[in-house]
Amino acid sequence: MKHKLFAILFLFLTINLKAQNNDSLVLSKIFKEALKKGEAYTMLDSLANGIGGRLSGSIQAQKAVEWGYRTMVNYGFDSVWLQPVMVPHWVRGSKEECYLKITQKSHFYREKLNICALGGSIATPILGITAKVIVVDSISDLVKLGRDKIEGNIVLFNRPMDESQVGTFTAYGGAVDQRWAGPSIAASYGAVATLCRSMEVGLSHYPHTGSMRYTDSLPKIPCAAIATIDADELAKQCKLHPDAEVTIKMSCETLPDELSYNVIGEIKGSKYPNEIVVFGGHLDSWDNGDGAHDDGAGCVQSIEVLRLFKALNLRPERTTRAVLFMNEENGLRGGKKYAELALMNKEKHIAAIESDEGGFTPRGFGLTADSLKFKKFQTWAPLFYPYHIYEFLPHGGGADIGPLREQGVPVLDYKPDSQRYFDFHHTEIDTFEHVNKRELHMGAAALASLVWLIANNGW
Amino acid sequence: MKHKLFAILFLFLTINLKAQNNDSLVLSKIFKEALKKGEAYTMLDSLANGIGGRLSGSIQAQKAVEWGYRTMVNYGFDSVWLQPVMVPHWVRGSKEECYLKITQKSHFYREKLNICALGGSIATPILGITAKVIVVDSISDLVKLGRDKIEGNIVLFNRPMDESQVGTFTAYGGAVDQRWAGPSIAASYGAVATLCRSMEVGLSHYPHTGSMRYTDSLPKIPCAAIATIDADELAKQCKLHPDAEVTIKMSCETLPDELSYNVIGEIKGSKYPNEIVVFGGHLDSWDNGDGAHDDGAGCVQSIEVLRLFKALNLRPERTTRAVLFMNEENGLRGGKKYAELALMNKEKHIAAIESDEGGFTPRGFGLTADSLKFKKFQTWAPLFYPYHIYEFLPHGGGADIGPLREQGVPVLDYKPDSQRYFDFHHTEIDTFEHVNKRELHMGAAALASLVWLIANNGW
Repeated sequence: MKHKLFAILFLFLTINLKAQNNDSLVLSKIFKEALKKGEAYTMLDSLANGIGGRLSGSIQAQKAVEWGYRTMVNYGFDSVWLQPVMVPHWVRGSKEECYLKITQKSHFYREKLNICALGGSIATPILGITAKVIVVDSISDLVKLGRDKIEGNIVLFNRPMDESQVGTFTAYGGAVDQRWAGPSIAASYGAVATLCRSMEVGLSHYPHTGSMRYTDSLPKIPCAAIATIDADELAKQCKLHPDAEVTIKMSCETLPDELSYNVIGEIKGSKYPNEIVVFGGHLDSWDNGDGAHDDGAGCVQSIEVLRLFKALNLRPERTTRAVLFMNEENGLRGGKKYAELALMNKEKHIAAIESDEGGFTPRGFGLTADSLKFKKFQTWAPLFYPYHIYEFLPHGGGADIGPLREQGVPVLDYKPDSQRYFDFHHTEIDTFEHVNKRELHMGAAALASLVWLIANNGW
Repeated sequence: MKHKLFAILFLFLTINLKAQNNDSLVLSKIFKEALKKGEAYTMLDSLANGIGGRLSGSIQAQKAVEWGYRTMVNYGFDSVWLQPVMVPHWVRGSKEECYLKITQKSHFYREKLNICALGGSIATPILGITAKVIVVDSISDLVKLGRDKIEGNIVLFNRPMDESQVGTFTAYGGAVDQRWAGPSIAASYGAVATLCRSMEVGLSHYPHTGSMRYTDSLPKIPCAAIATIDADELAKQCKLHPDAEVTIKMSCETLPDELSYNVIGEIKGSKYPNEIVVFGGHLDSWDNGDGAHDDGAGCVQSIEVLRLFKALNLRPERTTRAVLFMNEENGLRGGKKYAELALMNKEKHIAAIESDEGGFTPRGFGLTADSLKFKKFQTWAPLFYPYHIYEFLPHGGGADIGPLREQGVPVLDYKPDSQRYFDFHHTEIDTFEHVNKRELHMGAAALASLVWLIANNGW
């Protein structure tokens, strides 16, 4: 397989040498401009620091829509518009606390645990929920324990992300079922609340929020993420003191849906204006940090792609369109609306690219498409080697462009280095100062380069 | 050329498939162990936080020697020893300040500028040096201005690192002559002191220290690095106010040389114990930060290589030796001593590898050797692809192993991602909290893997 790929690569290299020389020049210009005069970092400053966390339905999300629209209008792209979409409006509320209480003889000991409600969770009663804690490693562990052991208790899902995985997204994929599906399954066995070990590779006192889904037919119970160090401490104390109790108080609630928007800007293609290469990130973020990596980075990189084209007088043959999707974090309404309208308007998307893995140093891209397109995609790889970008992998996509993939659109994702992502993901430290300017700009240049290659050459 | 390389790669892939399968298993074990149970980060904590900055000749450097020795003895490597070496002992002293004074009509305005003495600089007189500032972009600019313009003034070398360079070390190489050679050349034209724009890609208030060299035949003048923002401000004010003056006060001095040590640990080769693969970082660091990236990272990664081998019961056929070199920053005495003793003891070094580019996510290696070795080196590349490591480049080495290269030893360097390095390099923020555990451990695993391949397979 590897030999076959090399042979194909060899063939394409020969045929495409001339075209690639031009492309190589374009990429060199894109990277130079991005590194020397890039504006993604300044944009991110105004989004992350100027507006902050921007969960769907919040005033900050509305401000972010205005910010995105104004930013793209000011850059003078060919068209800038909004796509209305109704989004969920969950709010964390002012109360969010968790205490462990251990009674030993006549003494008792109380310890604060760092938690945060999972997005979509219901509140606890005002006085909180107090119960013993059953620690499980997995959903199947919980099922094995059965209703006898679970009923009336709080369940702590405590399986860590597997740090031996080289890619942290793989480790995330191996642990996130506890957060996503855990609460309803625990409820089905009579649990009164769940705590989920934070999706972090390693240890800290920061709880990582994230979305979960209640099963309609089951009772809804409050659910929170607990910081990894606190989860370990809680598990240890529960073992030492079987009578230990935890009190959780949360005042989160789901309000009526709100009107919000996808924000879109584009540059018309010079030759095939009806063929569209779309790329984007999501404009909403969790509320605890300022959403700099997740996904302010993807948003400003997407705007920067069009800005780079304008600044360098590049007009690809096909239309290039940046989309700031609304509501990726807890509903995907923006992504669904975009795909729905694309279908309705009979738009021809030749590719969709998502940047939603943080603003870290670029490593490559993934593509889900037929094998001919994949082969062409791989012939572009050598153009990226001067920028230390080597990965042109099968399987790409992203949550926001998932609905486009269902329509048969080839989907790609921008892959930055993943080692640091889950230090910040969905925490109060996903903030602007944890984004490195050069890494962010290298990413914008990488994205712009790929968009250029697809939009100018087609598949 | 590219085609030829692919053909060769193809050939080697076929021949070496079986050997590589074994190696591939070993690498997988190394990475898993490093990511799951790696100890480099804990070691770095004790070195960087426990001891701190450790400039040659300082008490901290002595403590670092003891720390390195004790750490390697505790791990139970086959041999651990010290190599005595006399090192320079320069101290920053307690006074280090710089003020800009602008007089306008009857008012005057005073602004603090962030500087730090360059390593090796002489002090100013106690009352400081006060003079006007001539701003130049390069040494050749200064030469063009000539003695008329320079004499009696302070020279500000203000050429920024070229941020459009993809590799920051290339940008560093393009700017560092101002720091290294600038002071003596300025002195030869009658300058009374120099300020050098900090070697930073981008802007901050942190001055970056570093070494410089006085030319013996020329007068010595005080020289300092100035933070990039402060350099811009100073240049701007000098343009607006030609009468602006700067006062520099520094109390640094060079004390008599001190006895110090290279710290060495090794595991004997199972088959060719007399053939040595040496690898290391430098134990000394600048005094302003805690030298976590430069080069605590390289030191703990080198110790970790041997620890990984022991933990995994790997005994390569050739001897593997970790060296914590003393005095890389301002004299290279450790590197020279090591090579001198290697020659004297007729040691056969088959490769020398340096890790001194920070504890960032791994990208690859460079090798300076004959073409046969280079080809073999490249056949190993695919073994590293699962770990996102793709660069097997010509040209490797490092300051500490430079003297070995002169003896004909093939020299290599470990290449982590370079985008963030010059944010921290030689500043007060080169500290432990700016090192990411996973990135550091991935680097240790990469280094261990390469050491394994060379030491077990030979060239």
